[in-house]
Amino acid sequence: MTELAKFAAETLEKVKRKKPVIHSITNFVVMNSTANVLLALGASPIMAHAMEEMEDIAAISNALIINMGTLSKPWIQSMNAAARLARIVSKPYVLDPVGSGATRFRTQTAHELIRYAPPTVIRGNASEIMSLSSQGAQTRGVDSTHSVDDAIGASTQVARNLKTVIAVTGEKDLITDGYRSFMVSGGHPWMAAVTGTGCAATVIVGAFLAVEKDATLAAASALAFFKLVAERAIEGASGPGSFWVNVLDQIYAITPLEVERHARIELV
Amino acid sequence: MTELAKFAAETLEKVKRKKPVIHSITNFVVMNSTANVLLALGASPIMAHAMEEMEDIAAISNALIINMGTLSKPWIQSMNAAARLARIVSKPYVLDPVGSGATRFRTQTAHELIRYAPPTVIRGNASEIMSLSSQGAQTRGVDSTHSVDDAIGASTQVARNLKTVIAVTGEKDLITDGYRSFMVSGGHPWMAAVTGTGCAATVIVGAFLAVEKDATLAAASALAFFKLVAERAIEGASGPGSFWVNVLDQIYAITPLEVERHARIELV
Amino acid sequence: MTELAKFAAETLEKVKRKKPVIHSITNFVVMNSTANVLLALGASPIMAHAMEEMEDIAAISNALIINMGTLSKPWIQSMNAAARLARIVSKPYVLDPVGSGATRFRTQTAHELIRYAPPTVIRGNASEIMSLSSQGAQTRGVDSTHSVDDAIGASTQVARNLKTVIAVTGEKDLITDGYRSFMVSGGHPWMAAVTGTGCAATVIVGAFLAVEKDATLAAASALAFFKLVAERAIEGASGPGSFWVNVLDQIYAITPLEVERHARIELV
Repeated sequence: MTELAKFAAETLEKVKRKKPVIHSITNFVVMNSTANVLLALGASPIMAHAMEEMEDIAAISNALIINMGTLSKPWIQSMNAAARLARIVSKPYVLDPVGSGATRFRTQTAHELIRYAPPTVIRGNASEIMSLSSQGAQTRGVDSTHSVDDAIGASTQVARNLKTVIAVTGEKDLITDGYRSFMVSGGHPWMAAVTGTGCAATVIVGAFLAVEKDATLAAASALAFFKLVAERAIEGASGPGSFWVNVLDQIYAITPLEVERHARIELV
Repeated sequence: MTELAKFAAETLEKVKRKKPVIHSITNFVVMNSTANVLLALGASPIMAHAMEEMEDIAAISNALIINMGTLSKPWIQSMNAAARLARIVSKPYVLDPVGSGATRFRTQTAHELIRYAPPTVIRGNASEIMSLSSQGAQTRGVDSTHSVDDAIGASTQVARNLKTVIAVTGEKDLITDGYRSFMVSGGHPWMAAVTGTGCAATVIVGAFLAVEKDATLAAASALAFFKLVAERAIEGASGPGSFWVNVLDQIYAITPLEVERHARIELV
Repeated sequence: MTELAKFAAETLEKVKRKKPVIHSITNFVVMNSTANVLLALGASPIMAHAMEEMEDIAAISNALIINMGTLSKPWIQSMNAAARLARIVSKPYVLDPVGSGATRFRTQTAHELIRYAPPTVIRGNASEIMSLSSQGAQTRGVDSTHSVDDAIGASTQVARNLKTVIAVTGEKDLITDGYRSFMVSGGHPWMAAVTGTGCAATVIVGAFLAVEKDATLAAASALAFFKLVAERAIEGASGPGSFWVNVLDQIYAITPLEVERHARIELV
């Protein structure tokens, strides 16, 4: 659908023009890589987790990302505070429930965060999203043991119940608000051979949300852009190391026009 | 010795087939790079340090890595808990005593961890391993000030006393259980110009231990594989930046057959 | 001015020969990248923040870096202790006031650190340095919203008041002790498209200070070297990902002779 690709292109263009400040409370593994993703995209990352500065940062940032990897108790308090502040000032907030379903601590924290301040978008792999539904799901680790197709029912249910957008990423991506659903295709299997590519998807969703009010379309646009990045990044890559270097180069290089021509989003 | 290289090749093949989940409690500097090493190898990393999830993670992971870099008190409690849980469920556990010998805090913590739950393998540089013996050793920083040859006596002593496997890495690597000793050669000096290459060796040892019960041979196989990676990674590298990119590419690319043909392990 | 470039070349040569141990208390985002910068340069990084080992590390390190990114209360205590210890043993200490001016927590912490133990050098972007002067300054995030020229007055004032060296980095760099001022030119705009390049500048300043007593000249030399690195790193780069790989390669590769010939420092 050309209209959706065009929308994605326009949203990318707005990110590059407005350079939104994205506040991330994220895990230690991906702090460097996701900061680089945001800078390559033209956004401005700010990583901060101290309670003492949550209010000041809420005042200067345009979107919030909460990522539950390498979770610990002291960080949950800041996550809750930041999420609540985002809701108060009507700022978009993306939750990445890393490891939900893998341990009770992560599953409970995801449920607590969602109850405390419903996210604008929840971006996870199939296992993580399924763990948020009433049926729940058990995962072997932080890598998904389910396919995106397995998660369609749970995604619709969770999206409707929470009045939020669910973005499930994998071989293909599903984005749904429980009523409208989009499927994004493209990408490359090597995305699974590099750490933090899901977390990278999350921050790109955050940057797109910061400049576009329709959260469902913003999330679909962001993920279509990132799938295109992965496709392009394979050129000249000889393994996951050089692939990731190319991913950063492509996030920087791909133009709105290329997104309009090549992004693959469809209404399902 | 062809038999040893063949064993290493078979163990690599098992890692790729079984995709073991490796629980890492590691330092902030290398969380990203070692997660990428494990993914490139075909294993599944999980980084977690909260007491609240130590039990759940012990239940889903196939090996444990404890790395003492960027150490602080709250993490030691989780390290002890995870190590004890690994012993209880007979899961292999590798200790990387980063900075032992450099500060009393690190040396004492290494001794405490070892006393509390003896590791399956201890992987360190010569200075770190020497600091664990009864003679002790003082280091200038986290980089070794001793050669692997300096550490042969201490390695044998510590291995016998603790009934553990000692793996000392450097220009060449020594792996010993106090009775059988192996020497691994190959590699490249640029390994010392990149941060976390010792920590990378540690997680590879963890992944090999997860699929092979003979810990001495598993550790020797892992280190022979990594030396071969370093040798290959030099092709096309023009400095430590591009060298590390190649290291990740080669971890992904090197096949069991290449390990069988080119790994250099000998009984000493 | 050839004499200044020659001085920079000689200082780089001393870093490579003496391999100083640099203690960093830095943020989670750049721990890996700045450790790699120091290793590529020929220095030896040690990252440690536990109060229990501050004294032992002060005894074995040749310079201290304190970086306020991803700040939290427990780390401030260690920063204060390390800074005070550095003053006591007359060891150079560089402060990187990341985010000062962006939140009150960061601004107050910067002022507290400076009051408690005046740094040898403060390295920041224009907005951060301006936030340290009596007029103050408000920033939108951690990226500068002011130019180096905006910060000339504040830099001179702060340098004189604190008897310290101020190094403001940006499109060009200003280094001043309030009496002597140097301007460094070169570099590349892609430095702003990679996370932690300011933090990288800070650790390079630390390494140069560890081997050269004239802090103003040491800082100017370090920044002139880093500008040259950026210029060289652009060759063959196709975006911020490959650019950063090249930066690490060039830090390793650039010789004192090349610095003597191409570094651009001038007295202003």
